[in-house]
Amino acid sequence: MHQPANTTSELGQLDRYWRAANYLSVGQIYLLDNPLLRERLQPTHIKPRLLGHWGTTPGLNFIYAHLNRVIRARNLDMIYICGPGHGGPGMVANTYLEGTYSEIYPDITQDTDGLRKLFRQFSFPGGIPSHAAPETPGSIHEGGELGYALVHAYGAAFDNPDLVVACVIGDGEAETGPLAASWHSNKFLNPARDGAVLPILHLNGYKIANPTILARLPTDELDQLLSGYGHDPLFVEGSEPSEMHQKMAQTLDEAFDRIREIQISARNGGRRQRPRWPMIVLRSPKGWTGPKDVDGKKVEGFWRAHQVPVDGVRTNPTHLDILENWMRSYQPDTLFDESGRLVGELQALAPTGSHRMSANPHANGGTLKRKLELPDYRQHAIEVPSPGAGPEEATRVMGNYLRDVIELNAEARTFRLMGPDETSSNRLDAVFEATERVWMEDIEPYDVHLGRDGRVMEVLSEHLCQGWLEGYLLTGRHGLFNCYEAFVHIVDSMFNQHAKWLEVSRTLPWRQPIASLNYLLSSHVWRQDHNGFSHQDPGFVDLVANKDADIVRIYLPPDANSLLCVTDHCLRTYDRINVIVAGKQPAPQWLSMAEAEAHCAAGIGIWSWAGTEETDEPDVVMACAGDIPTLETLAAVSLLRDAFPDMKVRVVNVVDLMALQPREQHPHGLSDKEFDRLFTRNRPVIFAYHGYPYMIHRLTYNRANHDNIHVRGFREKGTTTTPFDMVVLNELDRFHLAIEAIDRVPGLVSKGASAKQAFHSRLTEHHRYVREHGEDMAEIQGWHWRSKETID
Amino acid sequence: MHQPANTTSELGQLDRYWRAANYLSVGQIYLLDNPLLRERLQPTHIKPRLLGHWGTTPGLNFIYAHLNRVIRARNLDMIYICGPGHGGPGMVANTYLEGTYSEIYPDITQDTDGLRKLFRQFSFPGGIPSHAAPETPGSIHEGGELGYALVHAYGAAFDNPDLVVACVIGDGEAETGPLAASWHSNKFLNPARDGAVLPILHLNGYKIANPTILARLPTDELDQLLSGYGHDPLFVEGSEPSEMHQKMAQTLDEAFDRIREIQISARNGGRRQRPRWPMIVLRSPKGWTGPKDVDGKKVEGFWRAHQVPVDGVRTNPTHLDILENWMRSYQPDTLFDESGRLVGELQALAPTGSHRMSANPHANGGTLKRKLELPDYRQHAIEVPSPGAGPEEATRVMGNYLRDVIELNAEARTFRLMGPDETSSNRLDAVFEATERVWMEDIEPYDVHLGRDGRVMEVLSEHLCQGWLEGYLLTGRHGLFNCYEAFVHIVDSMFNQHAKWLEVSRTLPWRQPIASLNYLLSSHVWRQDHNGFSHQDPGFVDLVANKDADIVRIYLPPDANSLLCVTDHCLRTYDRINVIVAGKQPAPQWLSMAEAEAHCAAGIGIWSWAGTEETDEPDVVMACAGDIPTLETLAAVSLLRDAFPDMKVRVVNVVDLMALQPREQHPHGLSDKEFDRLFTRNRPVIFAYHGYPYMIHRLTYNRANHDNIHVRGFREKGTTTTPFDMVVLNELDRFHLAIEAIDRVPGLVSKGASAKQAFHSRLTEHHRYVREHGEDMAEIQGWHWRSKETID
Repeated sequence: MHQPANTTSELGQLDRYWRAANYLSVGQIYLLDNPLLRERLQPTHIKPRLLGHWGTTPGLNFIYAHLNRVIRARNLDMIYICGPGHGGPGMVANTYLEGTYSEIYPDITQDTDGLRKLFRQFSFPGGIPSHAAPETPGSIHEGGELGYALVHAYGAAFDNPDLVVACVIGDGEAETGPLAASWHSNKFLNPARDGAVLPILHLNGYKIANPTILARLPTDELDQLLSGYGHDPLFVEGSEPSEMHQKMAQTLDEAFDRIREIQISARNGGRRQRPRWPMIVLRSPKGWTGPKDVDGKKVEGFWRAHQVPVDGVRTNPTHLDILENWMRSYQPDTLFDESGRLVGELQALAPTGSHRMSANPHANGGTLKRKLELPDYRQHAIEVPSPGAGPEEATRVMGNYLRDVIELNAEARTFRLMGPDETSSNRLDAVFEATERVWMEDIEPYDVHLGRDGRVMEVLSEHLCQGWLEGYLLTGRHGLFNCYEAFVHIVDSMFNQHAKWLEVSRTLPWRQPIASLNYLLSSHVWRQDHNGFSHQDPGFVDLVANKDADIVRIYLPPDANSLLCVTDHCLRTYDRINVIVAGKQPAPQWLSMAEAEAHCAAGIGIWSWAGTEETDEPDVVMACAGDIPTLETLAAVSLLRDAFPDMKVRVVNVVDLMALQPREQHPHGLSDKEFDRLFTRNRPVIFAYHGYPYMIHRLTYNRANHDNIHVRGFREKGTTTTPFDMVVLNELDRFHLAIEAIDRVPGLVSKGASAKQAFHSRLTEHHRYVREHGEDMAEIQGWHWRSKETID
Repeated sequence: MHQPANTTSELGQLDRYWRAANYLSVGQIYLLDNPLLRERLQPTHIKPRLLGHWGTTPGLNFIYAHLNRVIRARNLDMIYICGPGHGGPGMVANTYLEGTYSEIYPDITQDTDGLRKLFRQFSFPGGIPSHAAPETPGSIHEGGELGYALVHAYGAAFDNPDLVVACVIGDGEAETGPLAASWHSNKFLNPARDGAVLPILHLNGYKIANPTILARLPTDELDQLLSGYGHDPLFVEGSEPSEMHQKMAQTLDEAFDRIREIQISARNGGRRQRPRWPMIVLRSPKGWTGPKDVDGKKVEGFWRAHQVPVDGVRTNPTHLDILENWMRSYQPDTLFDESGRLVGELQALAPTGSHRMSANPHANGGTLKRKLELPDYRQHAIEVPSPGAGPEEATRVMGNYLRDVIELNAEARTFRLMGPDETSSNRLDAVFEATERVWMEDIEPYDVHLGRDGRVMEVLSEHLCQGWLEGYLLTGRHGLFNCYEAFVHIVDSMFNQHAKWLEVSRTLPWRQPIASLNYLLSSHVWRQDHNGFSHQDPGFVDLVANKDADIVRIYLPPDANSLLCVTDHCLRTYDRINVIVAGKQPAPQWLSMAEAEAHCAAGIGIWSWAGTEETDEPDVVMACAGDIPTLETLAAVSLLRDAFPDMKVRVVNVVDLMALQPREQHPHGLSDKEFDRLFTRNRPVIFAYHGYPYMIHRLTYNRANHDNIHVRGFREKGTTTTPFDMVVLNELDRFHLAIEAIDRVPGLVSKGASAKQAFHSRLTEHHRYVREHGEDMAEIQGWHWRSKETID
């Protein structure tokens, strides 16, 4: 099975290719002009601000050149995930050498003039960022934050049996929590169905100003660690280029032989157990081939090589010399021809067409994406003969729909459902009628819904759920992440980075849209009364709302049918992040499917069946967003209706939170006219909101009636208690809402005193009752809505 | 060195103690009454809502009983960190058996009546939460979110040489990123100076509805993994209690022998290298000793034992029988005496006084806390002869102050500085004049500022920095976490959980206040122009502002002297979370130390030297919060002053963001009168803010002049560019601010047209210039403030 040994001449050429990439990397960091050093280097050729990271770059280029060799030798379909995204110049250099860069950005031609532009644009105003980024061809991963390289790699490999994802992990990144957890992703990769991930742990020894933990481990301990992660680590260590080329080539051959062996065995119906996958440990100097010392201080092989290893080049002639000697050490004249183009024999070392890692369509997933087949959600509609029907568990109904989604796309293998061990807890169990949880470790006879081919991915790590899904979406597939609302904060920063990726990608015409990242946040703040305060936080949407309006959507469907509509809509969208917040507990149902469709399409609307207004303007607007606030608002309306038969109450329900924003700020925003029509220009609005109340103020602060909008939401009052006690603690309950309405409606103050007193008594009674009995009063548990018509 | 083998009778008693703890745990989950089963169990004895987690509890109790034995045998100082915090009933049961619970909560007596109350209050309205929580004696760790047990344990052990932190890690939690990263904390623990951490990996095999990764690993692979983490894993595996007691006792003896050996060797000046610490792997059935099957389905040893293993007990007589048989299997009559008190020979098994883990003062760190010695920050004051002096790097000045803090508390060992490899990058280098970075791996001759005894902790994991600091603070010490602003989002959820801990702790009179958690966020959004968009996010403070007003503070000092004042203040506070945002780049200085002190004490104020107003109300208020917004605002005022000599401009600077809130909402909030005095009731306010502009609206929406407040901040426009181009992209620059002022001041529209045109031209010129030259125009780079007086 082993490939023939690599000839010295082949590796000599490969070394030249590597030098070309290194040369282009240095050029990007330093040069404004004189790109091929055809004249002596002058201060005017140097950029005024030297920005970029050299330290990791030669290692990245080394790996890239060697992977190119393997791709050509074995005709592989491979992408390159660059964990050390700081090494942007290296990634750009390689995509340029392959020709892809010029194809996508025709202005950057394959000649001296193009080289000059390539150098100049890097980390330059109006140019390209310093990191691997959406602008970088072949990239699905921005390395800025660090931690997500390996989890993205696995996400890309799932359901892509012919793909190899080479994933370079810096030894800095390896210290992060998400990366440390990601190693166990191999327990979820099925070699028969999925592609391969080849982790390449790059030990260059240093971070910004410190050594790294893994590089300083004794080798036997490192070997134990990586073996414990389920890998067979293959070590490539040294600094002498020709030796290193030999070792790397042989080791890669060994790794790819093993990958092939594993895959053949699994796909021939042989092994069904988790294999021990190969991985590479590359130990090479930081800033390899760069200046060894500057001003008497160690640079190569030390953290001083991290960013710009020699600075002040415009003003310090010695440093200018160091730079020139360094650049000339790559012998650019032997690498580029007279016109400035890479010489032919080196061009021939790169793969061609879509085998180039920079042109692999998996790294521009929108180009490969297949439409997700969606069932008719109306078939899962709950019968709602009249408002208040049920109770039903909204997410359980959604589970039925998701089961059908999974079934319809089972053959295409284009949809996965992620969850941190909460899919059943969130009541999406119906999906297990169509699939299982994927699991590559041993399966016991009494295990339930575990299998090698499952499309549900569960692991107790929100980081892995999010990262796998990102990698899966970025390579053109679809999915949904269900999570406890409070703990989705664990991935706040991953959300941020994905939103940033989308914000930039959308500006690049060559990047095709990818499927949206969809969240279902359930087990939410109002129904975590059993788990208590640590599980009660509705603030994720506050973070979401900070992001570009084109990207984010927040939905708060009040019942099962509206949840179905919203889910179906989200799964049809592209290049967005959709957040759906919905409860899992039995709850009354308000809208028939037809009503739900109309309501969700509008995003916001008056529920005239719930209010008591006639043709005039109402006395008060009772607004609500979220399932529990809706329930309590309708209960408050009932109380008010009984106490004040003449009071004109309007109920406004909000599904699409962004509808509250001005249209200029969000595409779903209401015009001022529409907003005023719903909320009036001068009547009191009592707004019951699912999350922190400030959100409503920040969305509505410049509406005409804002001073009359009084918001109730989560006030950080939480504990283990009963469901109704939770809303009472936060004064979001029916009684507090009704009392506030009385207080706000002019003229009710005296007339309302006895009603207020009655409501206060009920609160006192509730307080006593739950502390005595440990459950909510029967009248609360058994409350159900009766429409005005029903009563009349 | 080895302890004598444990006698069978000693372990027989220990088994009884364990049964007592298990009995009390089940009782808490199920019983309202009949706590000792002195009569047949009736449905009325059962709680209406069964809330709690049994699965992990018997394992936690098993460990607790065995640690008690070791504490007594070796006279140890030990605390217990309960990673599976769901096992709250077990932790409460043990603290009750030790008597601590009744000492702290005298109502819960050591008799039948006390037992009844103990059972009833658990997960009951008005009672205690279902998880280990601040209410739980001996706890410094709430297990709700999962992931932080081990990092908290290390934080507690640092600088506590006589303390042993036993840390139970559930196999569910072990799948999280933060926990996976935490294993490498042992590379930062110095056995000569710090205490010991004994990780106890509890493999009970299952999460909520899935097996766990680590429990299903082949044993050799698990052994490799844990060895690779630098541990010597000792395995205790089985389910037969008497055998398990033998194994556990022997294994703990072995572990503590090794710990003692390591510590003695290190403290006698022997070994300076990192040792291989012991750890325990306890493999025992989930729901051990509970019902084996319910309704024909496997429960013990399976995930069905996770929460309440047998439900519907009030209505299902078979289930009631199962419960009664289960509870009676512990033989409560042999464990508790007639009065309901634990029998004397079992009481004797618990340690006494502060050796009880539930009464260990380290777990109520405020009781041990020593005052942090603080230098006179005025000695580090920057000379500011007039506004606009400098430039200085604010955080570098702060670094001098922190160096002195470290020196003053070096002997007491009560202060640590945490940072994810960014302490130098954030320009706090001066601290390395007083200390080093702690590092227990090999140190090379060319390494810089690395040492075994350093007080700076750097690792590329924000999770570890935050978690170590939390553990350190919770055990009574002090510290500060410096972080890039964008990446502090990585610990959003940890911040949330710590804030929740503080919110609850403050309501418990017996919990003494602990030092505040202090953040320095630097390398902020406006000066990450070199790293680009992935490094640009100022939204952490939005999350912070959601938390209880008593807990959180957000400071935006505009220069070095104000940063010194704010830092000094924060280090003096308790039970808070202080967020300081400050830049690291050279910047003009505005305030002398005396002025800075007055300004920071007020939190907000008019900078009369910067404005042009006389005695009347101003034409416009130019408000600013944050160093860069302050700079651009003052530059805008300069432009306006030149263009409109008669225009009356007021400059208001905000240091303490919470001052903007109404006093009713935040203790630092301004009264409406004070607010109106600063911002007027009807003049336009152009507010330049450091972060997302919504923050200012949400803080000020109900102020009289809110409709006139126009906020500019970060608009998600970021990339790699020049510093000034970053503010221009987000329209926060001097020209945009001046233009907006012209637009907003009545009567200026026509007169201002030519000035506006000039400003637009300057923007165009800037745009062209930076794209051509790659740096900011000289007039921007060289701009400095000239006060009106100077000009006149």
